[in-house]
Amino acid sequence: MSSQTINVREDLRAERRQLADAFRQRMKDAGTFVVRLLSSPGAGKTTLLQKTAEILTRSYSVGILVGDVETERDAERLAPYAPSVQITTGGACHLELPLIERALPKLGNATPDFLFIEDIGNLICPASHELGEHLRVIVLSTTEGDDKPGKYPKAFRTSQIVVLSKTDLLPHVPFSLDKAQEDARLVQPGLEFFSLSALRDEGVDAWCEFLKQRRASAVE
Amino acid sequence: MSSQTINVREDLRAERRQLADAFRQRMKDAGTFVVRLLSSPGAGKTTLLQKTAEILTRSYSVGILVGDVETERDAERLAPYAPSVQITTGGACHLELPLIERALPKLGNATPDFLFIEDIGNLICPASHELGEHLRVIVLSTTEGDDKPGKYPKAFRTSQIVVLSKTDLLPHVPFSLDKAQEDARLVQPGLEFFSLSALRDEGVDAWCEFLKQRRASAVE
Repeated sequence: MSSQTINVREDLRAERRQLADAFRQRMKDAGTFVVRLLSSPGAGKTTLLQKTAEILTRSYSVGILVGDVETERDAERLAPYAPSVQITTGGACHLELPLIERALPKLGNATPDFLFIEDIGNLICPASHELGEHLRVIVLSTTEGDDKPGKYPKAFRTSQIVVLSKTDLLPHVPFSLDKAQEDARLVQPGLEFFSLSALRDEGVDAWCEFLKQRRASAVE
Repeated sequence: MSSQTINVREDLRAERRQLADAFRQRMKDAGTFVVRLLSSPGAGKTTLLQKTAEILTRSYSVGILVGDVETERDAERLAPYAPSVQITTGGACHLELPLIERALPKLGNATPDFLFIEDIGNLICPASHELGEHLRVIVLSTTEGDDKPGKYPKAFRTSQIVVLSKTDLLPHVPFSLDKAQEDARLVQPGLEFFSLSALRDEGVDAWCEFLKQRRASAVE
């Protein structure tokens, strides 16, 4: 690889970082707290967002942008709970900021109190793309195995929160909450953890309280 | 994008296809049946391969190449069952044929009766990369939701077999085997399905019988 190639890449990266920082600041100024969810396919992001929106909309405005390779399924599932816009990438493995900027006006209220971004189900590629969120959350389900943090380190290294989802299945799967946390902390010691079952409505209240507090300290 | 860029891409694609075809033919000539497994992280590829190797090695030679972004964990899990070599990509989201070619001699026997390739846990990017396998298999676990085929169509469109894994969890999760099959057949009508629980040793014998038959008609 020539040094010219490297410089172009670094310039591009720096430019993207600046755009993300500008977006983050703009949303903060508008009082919008941006929470982004990463996970494998089927880890439970959409179910968690349904329950989260159900609780938060009692006192806050909420908007959801949801990414998928194909189909409008997730936005249809989320629409009863909060304004939701589907972003389909038609093959691409991650969301990028220009897609977010383009989808945002379609929410109606483009600066809700909480803006959730559900990224494409993929533990690898999205971690390398900055969307200007205030909080990056990984959802790791108990059915995926407690060895995943070390195997997909970048997603865990760049996040602040891990939601250990589907805890209702713990009696039936070989998964240790302690081991998963240990493994994730080896990658990133500052990670915070929530264990919950969105399907059974266990732990979602505490998760929503946490989000309210984080929003208050970040954008109010 | 200029037409020159497009041509370079098409040339590259054609070249990669040729290399994959040559690899496939070379393995066939050596009597090696190459089976590649794709899935989300934690769908159960490694557990399925443990059980599959345990059964097949009673009458066949088996080799396993296993891809991950980081760590040697899967090769360590597989080593007691069959010669296994870990390929770590250090960040890349899929395996490529040159990595396979480089890892193969490390198996000891580079032309076993069955060569299994466990791709990176990712339902998107690996589907666009040809590794010269004879059979492409998607492992979809019952915990991921029966709506996944339509959302990740390329992986299902380019595979021949879907293994519906973790059937022991069916009583505890909102998943319909019928719906998943219907959804996958909308993407690719020719797909064949196996339902099994590798953890509980249910359905693995039938899966192995199927692999033996496929091998016999493909490379013997």
